[in-house]
Parts: sequence; C-alpha cells; structure tokens
Amino acid sequence: MKDEPRFRGIFCPHVVPLDADGAIDEAELRRYVDWLIERGVDGLYPNGSTGEFTRFTAAERRRIVEVVADQAAGRVPILAGAAEANLRETLAACEHYAKLGVAAVAIVSPYYYKLGAEGVYAYFAEIGRHSPVDVTLYNIPMFASPIEVDTARRLAEECDRIVGIKDSSGDLPFMMRLIDAIRPSRPDWSFLTGWDACLFPMLQVGCDGGTHASSGVAPELTRALYGATRAGQLDEARALQHRVARIFDAFFAAADFPDGFRIGAALRGFGNGRGRMPRSASQRDAEPALRAQLAELLRQEGLL
Amino acid sequence: MKDEPRFRGIFCPHVVPLDADGAIDEAELRRYVDWLIERGVDGLYPNGSTGEFTRFTAAERRRIVEVVADQAAGRVPILAGAAEANLRETLAACEHYAKLGVAAVAIVSPYYYKLGAEGVYAYFAEIGRHSPVDVTLYNIPMFASPIEVDTARRLAEECDRIVGIKDSSGDLPFMMRLIDAIRPSRPDWSFLTGWDACLFPMLQVGCDGGTHASSGVAPELTRALYGATRAGQLDEARALQHRVARIFDAFFAAADFPDGFRIGAALRGFGNGRGRMPRSASQRDAEPALRAQLAELLRQEGLL
Amino acid sequence: MKDEPRFRGIFCPHVVPLDADGAIDEAELRRYVDWLIERGVDGLYPNGSTGEFTRFTAAERRRIVEVVADQAAGRVPILAGAAEANLRETLAACEHYAKLGVAAVAIVSPYYYKLGAEGVYAYFAEIGRHSPVDVTLYNIPMFASPIEVDTARRLAEECDRIVGIKDSSGDLPFMMRLIDAIRPSRPDWSFLTGWDACLFPMLQVGCDGGTHASSGVAPELTRALYGATRAGQLDEARALQHRVARIFDAFFAAADFPDGFRIGAALRGFGNGRGRMPRSASQRDAEPALRAQLAELLRQEGLL
Amino acid sequence: MKDEPRFRGIFCPHVVPLDADGAIDEAELRRYVDWLIERGVDGLYPNGSTGEFTRFTAAERRRIVEVVADQAAGRVPILAGAAEANLRETLAACEHYAKLGVAAVAIVSPYYYKLGAEGVYAYFAEIGRHSPVDVTLYNIPMFASPIEVDTARRLAEECDRIVGIKDSSGDLPFMMRLIDAIRPSRPDWSFLTGWDACLFPMLQVGCDGGTHASSGVAPELTRALYGATRAGQLDEARALQHRVARIFDAFFAAADFPDGFRIGAALRGFGNGRGRMPRSASQRDAEPALRAQLAELLRQEGLL
Repeated sequence: MKDEPRFRGIFCPHVVPLDADGAIDEAELRRYVDWLIERGVDGLYPNGSTGEFTRFTAAERRRIVEVVADQAAGRVPILAGAAEANLRETLAACEHYAKLGVAAVAIVSPYYYKLGAEGVYAYFAEIGRHSPVDVTLYNIPMFASPIEVDTARRLAEECDRIVGIKDSSGDLPFMMRLIDAIRPSRPDWSFLTGWDACLFPMLQVGCDGGTHASSGVAPELTRALYGATRAGQLDEARALQHRVARIFDAFFAAADFPDGFRIGAALRGFGNGRGRMPRSASQRDAEPALRAQLAELLRQEGLL
Repeated sequence: MKDEPRFRGIFCPHVVPLDADGAIDEAELRRYVDWLIERGVDGLYPNGSTGEFTRFTAAERRRIVEVVADQAAGRVPILAGAAEANLRETLAACEHYAKLGVAAVAIVSPYYYKLGAEGVYAYFAEIGRHSPVDVTLYNIPMFASPIEVDTARRLAEECDRIVGIKDSSGDLPFMMRLIDAIRPSRPDWSFLTGWDACLFPMLQVGCDGGTHASSGVAPELTRALYGATRAGQLDEARALQHRVARIFDAFFAAADFPDGFRIGAALRGFGNGRGRMPRSASQRDAEPALRAQLAELLRQEGLL
Repeated sequence: MKDEPRFRGIFCPHVVPLDADGAIDEAELRRYVDWLIERGVDGLYPNGSTGEFTRFTAAERRRIVEVVADQAAGRVPILAGAAEANLRETLAACEHYAKLGVAAVAIVSPYYYKLGAEGVYAYFAEIGRHSPVDVTLYNIPMFASPIEVDTARRLAEECDRIVGIKDSSGDLPFMMRLIDAIRPSRPDWSFLTGWDACLFPMLQVGCDGGTHASSGVAPELTRALYGATRAGQLDEARALQHRVARIFDAFFAAADFPDGFRIGAALRGFGNGRGRMPRSASQRDAEPALRAQLAELLRQEGLL
Repeated sequence: MKDEPRFRGIFCPHVVPLDADGAIDEAELRRYVDWLIERGVDGLYPNGSTGEFTRFTAAERRRIVEVVADQAAGRVPILAGAAEANLRETLAACEHYAKLGVAAVAIVSPYYYKLGAEGVYAYFAEIGRHSPVDVTLYNIPMFASPIEVDTARRLAEECDRIVGIKDSSGDLPFMMRLIDAIRPSRPDWSFLTGWDACLFPMLQVGCDGGTHASSGVAPELTRALYGATRAGQLDEARALQHRVARIFDAFFAAADFPDGFRIGAALRGFGNGRGRMPRSASQRDAEPALRAQLAELLRQEGLL
C-alpha cells in the first residue's frame, strides 16, 4: 500500500459520440479523447453516468473502453465504469478492462432496487475480493443505492483492492466524514467529487480531485480551478468555481441529464449532440435556440 | 378498439428460480409456472421488478420469456417485461416476444436517470409507434422516472398500441385521476395496480386487476381477494386485504426487495430461495431464523 | 367505551373570514357557520390547517372556537383544533374548549421540529392523560411529524381519552393498517380522512368520514359523496369523487394552501377571500383571472 | 450601505434554561449569556431553532430577548429571532426588539405551510419594507419553506433593511450561488451558515461566520475553528472541523433536536437539561447513560 492517493486531479467522464444511426462513432470518440488529453485532463472515465453506460449494450460498453484505452495509449490513466447486470458479469468486465490496462475500474452502487447498507457492503466486498484490478466505489445517491460512510469504511479496511471513492452527492459534510473515517488507515485512497458546483471546497476539505461532466465541455476551466486551488490561489479558485458552476448549471438544466453535456461536446466539435433517447416534437423544436444559448455561454468564456 | 379492458384479474410477476451456480433453473421455473396457473392466476408477468429483470443479461431475459411462454402454452396471457438498454434493443425484444405469442409487453419507465415528463412521453410514444405487439406502461416511481397522469393521457390518445398501465405507487388519488383521464376515450385500457397493500380499494375505484409480488407466494389469497371484491362481498374482501397486506409486509421487509419473495417462492416449493446479489456474513447468519418466521406466517394462513 | 365510532360523516375544517384590516370578521364567520350547517355538514372543525391556526394568536384561536361553538349552538358537534406552543398551553386550551362544549379537540402532531416516533408518542400520551375532553390525533406528514401506526396503536390502547385520528396523508395502505391495528380493541375510535381526493376509497376501507377543505367550498358535493357511499350507490359515489377531486385540485393549486379555499369561501359568499399572508405584485395581478376561473368551475358544478 | 459585511464570526443560537416547573430560569440564562461571551462568541442568537422559539409563548419570546439583551449589555451584538404568528405580530416584535437595541432580527421563512417562492418573497419583502431594525433571513429547508437563491437576490436588491442570511441547509453549492448572486451588489450582506458540520468549507467559499448549536456546548471549538480559518491555518482548521463535527453529530443524534444541545448546556453547567417536550418512560430511562456518554465526549475534548 502506498502512502499517497492513487488518483489525483481532473478525470473526465465523457459522453460517447454517436453517428446518425445512433451507433458509436469511434472516429469522433478517438478525436475527443485526444482533445481532452491535450486540454490537460488527468484521466479519462468512460462508462460513467455522463457516458450513459446504461443506454449501451454490454458489448458496446466493452468496445467503448477498448477504444478509449487504445487511443489514450497510456498518456493518462483510465477509470473504467464496469458495472454490469450482476456480480458475475461485472467481474468479467473487470477482467477484460484489466487486460486493457486501465488504472482502475469504477463500480456504481447497485441501482434500480434500493439496497440497504448491508446489501451494498456485501456487493462491493465481493467485487473487492475477486477483482483483478483496483476498484473505486461510485456513490451517486440521486440515482443509486447510497453508500454510507460506515459501509465505505468497512470496505476500506477489508479490501486492499478498493482504492477510492467517487461521490456525486455534493454533500461536503458527507465527504469530510468519509475522509476522516478512511484516510488515517488508508492513505492510498482517493476521494474524488463528482459534483461540479463544489469542486473548490471539496478540494479544500481534502478531496484529491474531481470527475465532472463539465470537464467534457470546458476542461480548460476545471483544470484551471484544480490548479489554482492546489497552488493556493484561493481568490482565483473561487472565481473559477463560479464560472464552472455557471457552465454546469446551464448544461445540466438544458435537457434530461446528460443530454446537455452531449450538446456541449458537439459545440466543442465532437459528435452531433444527439443521444439515444427519443425526443418529442416540442423538444426537437426547442433545440436550436437551446444550442445557441449554450454556445453563447461558451463564447462568453472564450471557449468558442 | 374493444370497449372492454384487455387485461383483468391477477397477473403474477414471479421470481426466476436459480440453480446452485446462479444460473436460471429452467425446470424449476416450468414447475413454478404450472403451479401458479393451477392456483388460478389470470396471467404471468416475467421480467418484472419481482423478476429482477435488471440482474439478468439481455439473453437471459429472452430465455426467461421463452420458457414461460412455452410452459404456459396459451393457458393464461403473458405480459412480458421488455425494457432493454435503449429504444432499439427494447423494440427488438418486443418483436421477439411478439413472435412468442405474448399478450402484451410491459415497459418500465426509464430508470437510473430521472427523466422529465416530456422525455418519458417521447420514449413511450416511440415505442407505441413501432412495437409490433400491444404495450402496457409500467409506473414505479420509487425506482424509475414517474409517469404523470397527463403523460399517460397523451399516450392513450395518440397510440392505439398502448393498452394499459401498471402502477406500483399505491397512490389511490393518482390511480383515480388516471382512470378519469383515460377511460372515457380508451375503454379498452387496463389499469393494474402493483401495490399489494391496496388491491381492494384500487379495485373499488375502477382498477381491472393487480400484478403483485405477493401472488408468487400466496396466489390463493390475492385470487380470493380479487374474486370477493368482484362478487361484491366487501367485508370478506376487506378481511382478505388485511391478510394480503400482512404477507406483503413480511416478505417485503424480510430482505432487500425482491429477495424476500424469492424466499417465499422457495417456501412454497420452488427454487432454493437464493438470488444473484451477494450477501454479507451477517445476512447469511440471519437467514435461517428469517425463513422460519416467514414459514410460520404461511402456516398461519394455511399455505404450508 | 362505546362500541361505535364517536364521529361520523363530513366535518368541515373551515377558513376564518377576515375584515379589511385582517381582523377576524365574526359576523361573516357566524353566517358561514350557519350556511355550512344548513348545507348538511355533520360537524365543524375550527383551527385546522384550512383554518390557518398557526397564523392567529393564541387569543384569536380561542375566540374563533368561542364564536363557532356559540353560533353552532349544539346543532352539530365541534372538533376544535387545540394545539398551542407547548403542552401546558395546549392543555389550557383543551380545558377552555371543554367548557365551551366541543365534542372533542384535535391535536396536530408536533411540527417545525421533526420528532421521532417516541417523542410523538410521549407528547400525545401526556395530552391523553390530562385532557378534560376527548382528543383526536391529527396526522399530516407533509407539514408535521408523522404519527406512525404503532404510535397510534399504543395511544389507543393506553388512553381512553384519545378517541380517533384524522389522517391527511391520503395513503390508503396506511389507513388500512391503522384500522386493522386499532379497531378491534377500540371500536369507539373514529378514523377520518383529510385528503379530499380519496374520500370514496377511504370510506370503502372503513373510514368513518372526512374533514376536507373542499367541504368549505362545496359541502353539497362532499355530503353527497358521503351519502352515496353509505347508501351503497358506488357508481354514483365514484362519479362524485371525480367531481370533488376536480374542485380540490383546482382550489389547492390556486395559491399557497389554504388561500385557494379562502377564495372559495368568498365565491360562496363568505368573507373577502383575503388571508393574512402578504402577496407580491404579481400575485395580486393574477388574482382576478384566478377568481374568475375558480368561479367558472363552481358554476359548472351548479354551485354558483 | 457599508462595503463590509455587518456580521462576522460565531453567533450562538442558545437554548433557554428552564426551572423544575418548565418556566424560564432567568438567573441561569443570565449566567449562560455571561459564560458564552467570556468564551468568545461574537454574538448571541436568542429565539433560534436551538432556542426552541416555537415552544414558548409570544410573551416568553419577548422576555427571553429582554433578558439576553440586558445581560449582554452591548458586549456582543444580538440577532433576535422575531418570527411570530403573522406579519403584524412579527413587525410588532421587530419594533420591541429594536427598542432593546438588538443589532438585527432574524426571521425564519414561513413554516408549517410550505410556501412557493413568490409567497416567501412577498412575506420578507413586506417585513423589509416595514421593519424598524435590520433583518436577516433564516433559511432552514428541513423545517420551513425554502428560500431560493433568486428570492434572496430580489430581496437584497429591493430592501436595504435586509442585510444578510443564515442558511442551515449545509449545502455548499447553494451558499456559493447565494454569495455569487448577492455580494457584488450588496457588499454589506452577511452570509452565515447554520450547519455545524461544514463551517470550515463554508468560510472558505466566502461565508462570514456561523450560528451553530454546537457553540452553546463547545464555543471554544467553534471559535478556534473560525480563528484558524481566518488566520489561514488550514490544516489546523480541518482538524478542528473534524472535532466540531463529532460534537455536533453526537448532540444532534442524542435526542429529538434540540434536546441534545440542552443536555450539552447542562453538562457545561447551565440549566437542568430538561426541555418542554414530554418524554416517554423509555426516553427517561435512557437518559442517564446518554448523559454519561455525552459527558465523556466533552471530557475527551478537554471541555469537562
């Protein structure tokens, strides 16, 4: 066990560009990977919530990680979302991603059914016991069964393979309790926040970095915010946080998540902005004005 | 369009027995199908929430419907849960199930991501437009994006292929509003409740039947409750509702849903009671006492 | 202890007309009491949520009950809301209302702070022990600490003075569990529903009546619904429930509760429709159109 | 308008010691005020949620502020909770407190009824228009109608008399949005957090101070945390935040809020620890062990 967190900085949970038929547009995905790395992201996070993992088939999810890992070619570490329908399938995905050289897998807490704390623990403990690759927990209580502080602590104490957590609750006291409960015995754990609107204070209380949908639209800003905070330029960091929050709020509110961030990727030049969910006539009619408004916001930030 | 609801009575959303390795135990599933039909259920509902559709692979979900349809052999209608990762996969499943002769498919509202009303509408409208088999909506707001009254009404008016809704909210005013909004223009729609604890009043306000996890454990009771209500034996129905609620509460609270109902199926003689989710040591230790307590409840009802 | 519920039928939790200065308009309140009794309500319920008990001073709350009791003059029983700042003040109010001859007091569960079940129990047990007049519990979980089934059961078993519950959750399974838990040992308990949109099924599962804001606007409809249900005219009752729900939905949505029902009383001829909460310019501007729309709804029902 | 926030530092929302009969123990309250000031609190906050303002009569609330103001005698500023049953009573309280020389009043958002944003705005705008003393808004969405960012911004722009907000949500992104929306045009506004577990990051994002129940039990810690943060001793501040959170969690969980903090005051030497809410036999039986456990926690912190 190292005495430093494994993962630090800005990891990008990116969308997957689709072609006109809704199939994965691998060429665009590769261009997007290159661009994100060139913009300075510290890692990539395919098959996250932003990446709409639930809307791809199991085979497609594997293909996405294959393409991303191949294109990144070791330039940045990859956290690969690996949750599948059940434990057996999830472990098979972990094995596959291990062979592709990902730095770790990220496993979202069981969703659809709302599990109690003991069931969440049992699920991750089994993964921690059998995964051939390091595992990060993924807590997103608005979509999935919550991972409680005590559950994470038990897993940290019992499973060397589990090396961190991404938390998308945006709940500062929760994050502080997590860090207080785990860091003393597991200095190698990484604590990553997934709630874009509070990256700055999260870093201030001890987080190691963030995995934000906004990084797929404005990686320049999230990277600058991370850098300013690390450099102790707190006034600059506060101002950048304000700008990141404006971006996040606008793209989050633009459509059912994560479709706004898909439009954002398109505005930055990647993909056509269309996801897999059907849209109603009124949604289609509203889109040109919506795109224009989001583009204007990016222009104000000097990103277009 | 007929002027009578397509589906009436007690449909059973059953668990899928697994073998010691966690694979589908087809022989047990077939025996269970026979037993449920012999006990009088009016229809079967594979790949529902009770059937843990999210924990099977896409191939397994198809196999489950194949086995159930083959074994039922037309004795009762089948509502086949057909939600897959995205619209294309869902429509492919609808086509497959249509060929198997199911009476209709049941499509759960999009889950994980919480969609707004317009997104829910767009999703079902597209399914309604392209499905080769009749479709029932499945509203379960504790797990999935809610289907609002107005959304259901729009779908009823625009899509002949959509022929009903299963609602698992247990919210009587919601159901009454649904019926008031839709029945006048779509007398062929079926309104089915999925909340076991209020089948009796749901039938009183105009529901056509129910799809209850309890029917997999005590089909005798849910069938008797349905029959008594239809026959106007209201005191008898009220007393039966009390007994159904006791069964439901006990098996619902026994474990993370739907594991209690899996134990219930095992107590009635089908499968080993073990699901696909890992259990912790303390959960395993607690199970014998739990099974004994649930068995005692069934004995009190004369079901063991 | 009697073997029949103490309270049956439609109790009206009415608003209190105010004059142009916001003071209680006693003359209008007296006229309103007469009118409600003439329209057939089975009882009156001053100082309920509809009556905005929190927005009057302690002295004003007493005056309201004095006026209502004096004007009713024994024609119908009175359930007087008696919750004050603390136990001592609440018991003093109970004593005062007992002298005025009210049939019972109604005590809302502690609000603002959210109490656990044991705290809710302790509060009502102490009231049950010391009140000189019969007490009904008032459960309204959207505003106050929830009263759980087991808490109500303990209170029913231990406190003869506690003789019923008004539940405004609209949760049918909850009401059925309450009745199942309490009626066998306390046949004198009354179970009243306060959720207008489900009076019909509530009566079907065993409720004794309802206390509905809608009764202050359209007592003709709630009384007719109650009567039809009691007479076994179920189709008629279902149709009336639909009409009551339309009234309720419209007046509930018209403004922050209960201001819509205050407008409703004004439309029926009582008071000026103005409450004590300030309104913004845009709220004031919107009111004429809102009143016209609500009036039209009442006209459609033949009530204007 | 000044260009600096009016209120900074640690304001203590204290409990009110009661005698054996449940009456206000003025002598203990005076001793407690002295002790808090001696421990360095920057201000006092009578009639807050910790002060159980809803459980006192209107006359008692006035008496509490009179005693606190008289005893403080200008040594520290006083934020006096002034919410009464309605606008007229609230403004009368504001006038009374103005004469007592309080620095400002604090007005909780309307509670019991859940108001929409426009109603919340209208209420505070009217207070801001007529109050003879400066006003701070009090947002505590777990108990009262939420004050949205846009509502606070409108009030800041329109009402000079409104000079700040206390927010007890613990929601960092919300606080950052508030500050971003208001500080540019109102540099005199104070942003105070009322959620003890995140004082440190709240100060980092720009809050001016905190009003914490914990300050009534361990003012030494909250003051030290404030001081360390202001001095830029961030590691020290982080460690102190951890200790404050432990205190807060323990006293918050000890009983229905705020009874744990009442016990805390008693452990520090003020009052008997008994509030006005009745306790059940089991609550009474559990208290000695609970007090011992809380005392041990204070001993570990060197506070006993």
